[in-house]
Amino acid sequence: MDADAKKTSLRMIPYGIYVLTAKGGDAIGAATVNWVTQTSFDPPLVVVGVKADSGAYAILKESGSFALNMLGKGQQGVAFGFFKPAEVDGHMISGEPFEAGTVTGAPILQNAHASVECKVAEIVEQGDHHIVVGEVVNAHVAKSPEGRPDAAILEMKDLGDNVFYGG
Amino acid sequence: MDADAKKTSLRMIPYGIYVLTAKGGDAIGAATVNWVTQTSFDPPLVVVGVKADSGAYAILKESGSFALNMLGKGQQGVAFGFFKPAEVDGHMISGEPFEAGTVTGAPILQNAHASVECKVAEIVEQGDHHIVVGEVVNAHVAKSPEGRPDAAILEMKDLGDNVFYGG
Repeated sequence: MDADAKKTSLRMIPYGIYVLTAKGGDAIGAATVNWVTQTSFDPPLVVVGVKADSGAYAILKESGSFALNMLGKGQQGVAFGFFKPAEVDGHMISGEPFEAGTVTGAPILQNAHASVECKVAEIVEQGDHHIVVGEVVNAHVAKSPEGRPDAAILEMKDLGDNVFYGG
Repeated sequence: MDADAKKTSLRMIPYGIYVLTAKGGDAIGAATVNWVTQTSFDPPLVVVGVKADSGAYAILKESGSFALNMLGKGQQGVAFGFFKPAEVDGHMISGEPFEAGTVTGAPILQNAHASVECKVAEIVEQGDHHIVVGEVVNAHVAKSPEGRPDAAILEMKDLGDNVFYGG
C-alpha cells in the first residue's frame, strides 16, 4: 500500500471536534476526540475511536458510560485545552464548568453547544484506539444552531491549516 | 430523552459522502454511505455504519471486503445515483465506470477522487445499521486535492439544505 495515498485518502474524511468525558467513582476523564460517527437510528448508536492507553478510555471502560460534548465554531481554545490530561477542580474540568449528566453522571460541559450521554454498548479492542459503541440515552442542546447543525460544529480544519488527526 | 435534542445534537456530526462497494462471486453491491470514521492509525482501521437489510451489506459480509470511494465536490449526481439499488453493466455500475481493486477485488469507481480497499476485521451486529470495521489494505488517489483533503470531499450539506442522514 502506498503510504501517501493512504494518508491522503483517509484525510478526506471530515471531522467535527468533541470533548469526550467520563466519570468512574471519583475519577473524571476528559479528552478532545474527533473520530466519531453515528451508526444506527434505532436504537441511536454512535461510535468513537478512543486512544487505548488514555485516561479517559480507562474511566469510560470502568464506568460503562460517557458523554460527547459538541464544540461550536470559535471554541478552538476548549479543544486545545483538552489535548492535555484533564485537571478537575470542584465543578471545573481544565477550566471549563460542568455538571453531571442526569442519566449517566458523565460530565456535561456547560459551554459546549450540545452534548449526548451514552451507555457503552460494546467495545471492539482492535487497533491503537479502541472502538467504543455507545447508545445515546440523553441529549442536551445548550445553544441551538441558527442554520444547519453540521455547519455550527467546530471542525478539524478550524484548528489550523496543517492540523490533522487521521491518515 | 428529548427527541428534538437528540436529533439536533446528532446532526451536529459532519459527514463526507462515500460510495461503498463490494463484490462477492458475481454479485456487486454499491451504495452511498456517510457514517464513516477512522478508528486506528496502526493498523489503519475505519468504521462504516451499513444498513443491515441492504444488498451491499449482504455482499460485503459474504466477501469479507469492501471499498470506500470518496466523492469530490460537485459529484452530487454520483451520490444520488447510488441511493438506488446498483445496476451492473459490464465495467459500469449505475453508469459509473469501475475497475476491480487489486487487493480485494472490490469495485473502485474511476471517477471517485480517492478510494480505500478494506478487509472486514469485525462486524458489530447492533442497531438498524451494523458496524463494519475494516482494515485499510490498499489506497488509490485518482485526483489529488489542491488544498486540505477534507475540504475536497463532497459533504452531506452539499446534497441540499434540508438533506440529513443522522439524528
